[in-house]
Amino acid sequence: MLRPIEWTGNTQGHLRLLDQTLLPSETRWLEVHDVPTLYEAIQMLRVRGAPAIGVSAAYGVVLGMQAVSTTDAAVWTAELERVTAQLSTARPTAVNLAWACERMLAYGRVIDYLRPADHWLAELLKEAHAIRDEDAAMCRAIGRHGAELLRELNLPAEAGILTHCNAGTLAVSEYGTALAPIYTLQEASQRLMVYADETRPLLQGARLTAWELQQAGVPVTVICDNMAAALLREKKIQAVIVGADRIAANGDAANKIGTYGLAILARYHNVPFYIAAPSSTFDLNLETGAGIPIEQRAPSEITHGFGRQTVPTGVAVWNPAFDVTPAELITAIICERGVIAPINATNIEKLLSK
Amino acid sequence: MLRPIEWTGNTQGHLRLLDQTLLPSETRWLEVHDVPTLYEAIQMLRVRGAPAIGVSAAYGVVLGMQAVSTTDAAVWTAELERVTAQLSTARPTAVNLAWACERMLAYGRVIDYLRPADHWLAELLKEAHAIRDEDAAMCRAIGRHGAELLRELNLPAEAGILTHCNAGTLAVSEYGTALAPIYTLQEASQRLMVYADETRPLLQGARLTAWELQQAGVPVTVICDNMAAALLREKKIQAVIVGADRIAANGDAANKIGTYGLAILARYHNVPFYIAAPSSTFDLNLETGAGIPIEQRAPSEITHGFGRQTVPTGVAVWNPAFDVTPAELITAIICERGVIAPINATNIEKLLSK
Repeated sequence: MLRPIEWTGNTQGHLRLLDQTLLPSETRWLEVHDVPTLYEAIQMLRVRGAPAIGVSAAYGVVLGMQAVSTTDAAVWTAELERVTAQLSTARPTAVNLAWACERMLAYGRVIDYLRPADHWLAELLKEAHAIRDEDAAMCRAIGRHGAELLRELNLPAEAGILTHCNAGTLAVSEYGTALAPIYTLQEASQRLMVYADETRPLLQGARLTAWELQQAGVPVTVICDNMAAALLREKKIQAVIVGADRIAANGDAANKIGTYGLAILARYHNVPFYIAAPSSTFDLNLETGAGIPIEQRAPSEITHGFGRQTVPTGVAVWNPAFDVTPAELITAIICERGVIAPINATNIEKLLSK
Repeated sequence: MLRPIEWTGNTQGHLRLLDQTLLPSETRWLEVHDVPTLYEAIQMLRVRGAPAIGVSAAYGVVLGMQAVSTTDAAVWTAELERVTAQLSTARPTAVNLAWACERMLAYGRVIDYLRPADHWLAELLKEAHAIRDEDAAMCRAIGRHGAELLRELNLPAEAGILTHCNAGTLAVSEYGTALAPIYTLQEASQRLMVYADETRPLLQGARLTAWELQQAGVPVTVICDNMAAALLREKKIQAVIVGADRIAANGDAANKIGTYGLAILARYHNVPFYIAAPSSTFDLNLETGAGIPIEQRAPSEITHGFGRQTVPTGVAVWNPAFDVTPAELITAIICERGVIAPINATNIEKLLSK
């Protein structure tokens, strides 16, 4: 099992991160011994995917506190506040980053300070491990529920699953979300062919999904995004599974640009379209997907994406990072708490209040 | 008006070609004085698009015969046979190439050989110009019919037209096919915004369509192929127009990979989907699109496009060059002889036998 985020050693240990910006041409591990190195890694997307960023940040808090040698609990917690506040700013949009920092701080505040000071750091490390373990358990649960759903389809021997972007091990701490059902079936010796959209403009499918599936021995074929329809027409795809960045109360789901089109193509070809996401992805404050803000990203991602200029200077580009798939196009949402289908506000609320 | 293929001078003149492999970063003209140079240009896709290749080859025959100094008509026609046979092999799959060479040869055989030898070459050049002029007239006719069709939609002031790949001036000798209605409306001062799919893997949309529209002063915005659905949802697109490589008797149309998916997305959003193609594109020997062979191209187009490796070594890719859009998804076919709608074998036969 590939572990792109790993803590090595005890409280004086360090964090090892797989540098995702260099994949697939280079597999380089970053040995992270301090907060500034981690901060840069998060900013530069060397570690990416909201859950992965959260887990890294939790360990980052431990790294930051290794340098603090005091037996004064007040001084120590003041330092903890400083470290968590600093780390939180590495990427302001990733909710899991702030969430993990806050959780580490809250935990740090209720440590038993009557015990010796070396125990304090051990407690922080324990909490960071807990965050990682919960994330891994979430992935495994999504894998179980998703695998069950796929089994109900009575997949043929060489069934094809299409995915978009990267919602796998590299984005989370273990099985990922969209890829978790695939890894679970692989463990149960059900062979699948995963088709990975290359996912323009940043090519996370070609660079990351293909790489991690290859590492895990799962057969994978990369296609350009515009080839999905032809593949569906040839009946090579039995299900589409993708992740999500935010899901509204009615089930409308924001995910990497291209997801919405894929959902339409799946519907046209009568192929089920699944979203796999932890319950933390739901934003019940938003009634529908219309309320989800869509980030426009730098034109250079499109115009200079492959090392060469591919669009004439001065030509406009449109580069939204996400699109919103309406609930009516989603067959089911696979959550760590269970499966939501059909998708509607009542069923979502029911599962989330479990 | 941009002329990517131009003959300069009289019978001793030469051919000027815009090198399309260097666009958009460099605008370099090739001065073609002999057949080997043209042969290489066709093979390397410096000139591309079936009609453009045909026109270039016709002029290439003139270039090949410039070197032949004989007053013996039998020797001269034997040389003409040799030159046309050689040029035909530059790209065996482009039907227009063989067609243009055969036409030049047939014309060369019926020249009045009682007139002086310098007249023979002038006759060949006249025929090459005729091929170019017919091609240009075909484009203008498609432009007229297509513009009329678009006018019937009562387009808003800032109407958006989406296109895929390049079926413009660069692929033909003048207005192109899919872009002809746009250029025609531009001439009539109807402003449009053209959205160009970048068109992976070879990015003809980003590199070529965007470039030629910019040259012509037509507003253009490039998107990644997977952004079309989101653009349609935002109601920024009033019509989709693409070209075609081969059309079966029932109207099923093969075109650049990605076209089929676009047709489904257009249908889902109730936006008309047009194909613009000359009548020479129809292959009435094929009853349906199922008979159209689909070329699989080199994996490196996906794995190493444009300067960088983007797919891990050893991972499979699927790279069909074309897909087939079934007739039922096509609103109309815009031909130089008129518009076919609704699409069916009877309407197609009726127009083609005009």
